[in-house]
Amino acid sequence: MGPHPAVADVRRAVRLALADLEPGDLVLAACSGGADSLALAAALAFVAPRAGLRGGLLTVDHGLQSGSAHRAAEVARLPLGLEPAEVLTVRVGTAGGPENAARDARYAALSEAAARLGAAAVLLGHTRDDQAETVLLRLARGSGTRSLAGMPARSGIYRRPLLELGRATTVRACAALGLSPWEDPHNRDDRYTRVRVRARLLPALEEELGPGVAEALARTALLCRDDADALDEWAGRAYARAVVREPGDGGAAGAEHAAGGGSGGSGGTERVALAVPELEDLPAAVRRRVLRRAAIAAGSPPGTLSAGHIVQVERLITHWRGQRAVEVPGGVGAVRRCGTLIFVAGPSRGGGGGP
Amino acid sequence: MGPHPAVADVRRAVRLALADLEPGDLVLAACSGGADSLALAAALAFVAPRAGLRGGLLTVDHGLQSGSAHRAAEVARLPLGLEPAEVLTVRVGTAGGPENAARDARYAALSEAAARLGAAAVLLGHTRDDQAETVLLRLARGSGTRSLAGMPARSGIYRRPLLELGRATTVRACAALGLSPWEDPHNRDDRYTRVRVRARLLPALEEELGPGVAEALARTALLCRDDADALDEWAGRAYARAVVREPGDGGAAGAEHAAGGGSGGSGGTERVALAVPELEDLPAAVRRRVLRRAAIAAGSPPGTLSAGHIVQVERLITHWRGQRAVEVPGGVGAVRRCGTLIFVAGPSRGGGGGP
Repeated sequence: MGPHPAVADVRRAVRLALADLEPGDLVLAACSGGADSLALAAALAFVAPRAGLRGGLLTVDHGLQSGSAHRAAEVARLPLGLEPAEVLTVRVGTAGGPENAARDARYAALSEAAARLGAAAVLLGHTRDDQAETVLLRLARGSGTRSLAGMPARSGIYRRPLLELGRATTVRACAALGLSPWEDPHNRDDRYTRVRVRARLLPALEEELGPGVAEALARTALLCRDDADALDEWAGRAYARAVVREPGDGGAAGAEHAAGGGSGGSGGTERVALAVPELEDLPAAVRRRVLRRAAIAAGSPPGTLSAGHIVQVERLITHWRGQRAVEVPGGVGAVRRCGTLIFVAGPSRGGGGGP
Repeated sequence: MGPHPAVADVRRAVRLALADLEPGDLVLAACSGGADSLALAAALAFVAPRAGLRGGLLTVDHGLQSGSAHRAAEVARLPLGLEPAEVLTVRVGTAGGPENAARDARYAALSEAAARLGAAAVLLGHTRDDQAETVLLRLARGSGTRSLAGMPARSGIYRRPLLELGRATTVRACAALGLSPWEDPHNRDDRYTRVRVRARLLPALEEELGPGVAEALARTALLCRDDADALDEWAGRAYARAVVREPGDGGAAGAEHAAGGGSGGSGGTERVALAVPELEDLPAAVRRRVLRRAAIAAGSPPGTLSAGHIVQVERLITHWRGQRAVEVPGGVGAVRRCGTLIFVAGPSRGGGGGP
């Protein structure tokens, strides 16, 4: 008799996610003790030796709940057959709110441990339901295709083998294996937006729109990821074609000096010049991605640079009537001079002028 | 004293949407008598003469509720100053469910009337809230960027000037103008999915995720539309490069004959051949769009051709190991022969073979 279907599903997903690794590579499962990551860790323990890989486990003690150290030690001691099995104790800050701060601390610790142990991959237990929650949360921000793409199946050292499986599958897999998942009380604390999305919104969507909403949201994420990748590729090529090495424009050079004088001694300003004719015929979606790249290259912080800022910059191309510089976050200004669009960091820049 | 801000907002939106029309052009507002389209019609009556245009009104009697003919006649008689003001009586069928059947009948009647009256544009009263509902409904289908793009601001003769205004603005505009909107009882009938989205889901999203969800969904639609347009442009060029006029492949010609023999006397089969090398290096999002175009050109119906079908066809390029033909809806098969991917309509086609 084969394994329980849920166990087989999780193992197959893990096997597929590791197919490209080399014999002897170390793979670490990040395991909170919850059903998702517990099923993941158990599957890794089964799959790794059969694939010629080494499987280990990392569990993070965030120190946010009493008894968290004890619980983390228990997870690390689970007799799964993963070696090493380490507790990573982190200090959670406050930057960006409790959810972001905990996540930042967790990933920093996981990355550090992976590097220290020489791991080829760290597996995360996010399921299709987590992906659906992510898409819904991002949708509410209205921030476009890349954002709707949700969590990637791979990013650097991290891999998410379970993105196409439902959370219920991991619960069933744990039950079939006789493993008792730990239920994080935070997962029922509705001060967290994600908890409200999980406990109320997704069920409401299923209720009103019919079953399969989580799958549909996860499928949306996959399609949006491919679309965003393709548009980024196009924008990358268009950017390379549009960049001007030396604009040969006295006014702009003056702006550079002014900016350099005020940049706080960082040792020179970033300056990016784009040839306007290369931008005029691009589709809006590609042109805006090129402008975004240029603004970021000139020092504008990606996190605060919004679509609204880029639309303002775009008007220097599509609605040109001699406007002054457009300011974007990070003290970067965009100004058009003699058929060149110049992004320059610094507090003082001149207005527009030439055609 | 100027007009009420809501009235001014609606007028401004209508004025912007008509800015490209020629003096003397006829513009028709499609008006159900609801707040959205009533505010739209009133704004058209104000804007049209000042812009040198003629403004008229169309209202559709779907004949689905008792008294609908009377109500439609009342809308057409409203003293807005729009001329002509016509009632279009339609017969709603059953194809695709009640909402789809009513919509199909409505648009057919509007298009016919616009052509008969020589109108340059027909204005529709869809607001940002309608757009948000549309995006949410489509999201639940998991069908990608083009679908998430929602309703276009322009499509053929139709224009939607109010897509960036909230429904509440149209309600306030009607109140300020002393107009009494008619409330369609269908809008409270929760057998309709859209009614449930409006009455329950969007409020639940606002409640759990914070205010501004409708705006965010509408913004998502705009971004997705630009992305989808850009990808379609790329796919169009890639398709033109990949199409092979004469594949020069005996086996494929044989398949064409077999298909022709079984195509039911339609007078020849559509056959589309693509050069595989042109497809190999495309990003997946573009390649799949090219394959979709080819399948549709060969006769596969767009409505039933799913992303899943296209992924199967794509494997003939990305996972080629001599597979047989892949069937897609409409009796179309895709087969790879000697570096050419051939889409051909007809019930009988041979398997794979050459590299």
